[in-house]
Amino acid sequence: MKTYLECIPCFLRQTLEAVRMVTADPKLQEYVLREVLRLVSEMDLNQSPPYMGWQIHRLIRQVSGNPDPYREVKRRFNRFAMELYPQLKEKVDRSEDRFQTAVRLAIAGNIIDFGPAGAIDGERMDQTIDESLKSPIDEEAIEKLQVNVFNARDILYLTDNAGEIAFDRLLLEEMPLERITLVVKGSPVINDATIEDAENIGLSNLVKLVDNGSDVPGTILEQCSERFRRLFNRADLIIAKGQGNYETLSESNHRKIFFLLKVKCPVIARDIGCDPGTLAVFENSPSED
Amino acid sequence: MKTYLECIPCFLRQTLEAVRMVTADPKLQEYVLREVLRLVSEMDLNQSPPYMGWQIHRLIRQVSGNPDPYREVKRRFNRFAMELYPQLKEKVDRSEDRFQTAVRLAIAGNIIDFGPAGAIDGERMDQTIDESLKSPIDEEAIEKLQVNVFNARDILYLTDNAGEIAFDRLLLEEMPLERITLVVKGSPVINDATIEDAENIGLSNLVKLVDNGSDVPGTILEQCSERFRRLFNRADLIIAKGQGNYETLSESNHRKIFFLLKVKCPVIARDIGCDPGTLAVFENSPSED
Repeated sequence: MKTYLECIPCFLRQTLEAVRMVTADPKLQEYVLREVLRLVSEMDLNQSPPYMGWQIHRLIRQVSGNPDPYREVKRRFNRFAMELYPQLKEKVDRSEDRFQTAVRLAIAGNIIDFGPAGAIDGERMDQTIDESLKSPIDEEAIEKLQVNVFNARDILYLTDNAGEIAFDRLLLEEMPLERITLVVKGSPVINDATIEDAENIGLSNLVKLVDNGSDVPGTILEQCSERFRRLFNRADLIIAKGQGNYETLSESNHRKIFFLLKVKCPVIARDIGCDPGTLAVFENSPSED
Repeated sequence: MKTYLECIPCFLRQTLEAVRMVTADPKLQEYVLREVLRLVSEMDLNQSPPYMGWQIHRLIRQVSGNPDPYREVKRRFNRFAMELYPQLKEKVDRSEDRFQTAVRLAIAGNIIDFGPAGAIDGERMDQTIDESLKSPIDEEAIEKLQVNVFNARDILYLTDNAGEIAFDRLLLEEMPLERITLVVKGSPVINDATIEDAENIGLSNLVKLVDNGSDVPGTILEQCSERFRRLFNRADLIIAKGQGNYETLSESNHRKIFFLLKVKCPVIARDIGCDPGTLAVFENSPSED
């Protein structure tokens, strides 16, 4: 997905929120905002929005001298999500369609996100979980995903955020674990999941775990490690969680990708062709099945 | 009021809204956004936000080749407000405290504004009028304003927007008309009232009417005409309508200014020390009365 003009005010809003989280020094905050204004004034709008997010958060980490400003936030989200995990697992166990319920919950977990919408509290999480179990969803797309999962030899599951990955665990557990490679970011960016988070959630005991070698809040293949690109090009099914992965991979038609995301932004909603708030499940290109 | 960091995303949002109103050409829209990003990256934050608004709207007018892009909008607002005028006048006539009711309605008219909040429809206007008649308001400040009005020899009334000035008319009519000079902008900027609008509303037959010689969406004295500055420095009471006038005159303590505005922006609310949505009536400096 390219960068739309509407993304520009949002870059600045997100920069301000992020820089305030990492420093209370108004001079540093102002410096970062001015730098981002300059970067955005010259940016290539054919790049996806996470490309600019990448530059913004690199700058913020550099200026603040903190290589992982969201570390505590991520730990809190991981704990918070793991406390929910047993009751969510019970919801899957009691449901008529385990796979569909797990997909719904994996998408519900996608609201744990510091980028577009700020913090999350228990009440909003409970509400999101309830809604995600009832909201309309493309059931055919889920069935197609399920068929693809069971036919694939090599599944690459691209995670999005810390905390959210505990919700992903529910879906992973409905899939053939030995055929899955779970992918996290190569180093910290916003609250995106890294190796440390996946280990916290116990995912390294469950599936093969790799990082993509990059600190882009999404998946820009050219920025990823050679090793990750090999895995990407070899996989016969890719499951990509969240907006950042959609924004960066929406035009990658050489692989079969299923996107799973909660649509939190009106621009992405328009790009997908759905309403904001949608629990989106869809395939990037016509399936060959 | 200085420019806060929160104003920066808002400048970009307002630029995008405004440039889309004047041109459907995405290249021009992109050009204007990039220019504004560059301007904001270098701006002096000690200037008030309308200083940047001024530069943004000059750029938009220049790029679009349209010296008055909001002309039709302003005419529509004037007609819309003049249609409401008779029933509003009746509300004043039937009220127990005519002056207070007129102040409340003059502030209600301040939501007719294209800058911070987009368009306005009849329903929202009716709701705003009802609320403005019931909402808490600083009655002591209104009484103090009334005393000052009746003691002043020379009252300068700084208007804000087209349409809104029909609401101001209700308040003007509760004041000694012969002592009032009504001030509009020197040339078009956004939907701010100009001589043409004041004449449309019939205000030129009611009071002395002058323009301030400037196209700033507020009152930056250095940008105003010599003639206006003389009037400003001579007046013993200044009534300043709207956010733009507050933002640009909040630090002018050498004159007695009463600000009347609907607080539409959280940053301005914090600067004033009130909640967003407040019907604000207050004096800039301790009164000598």
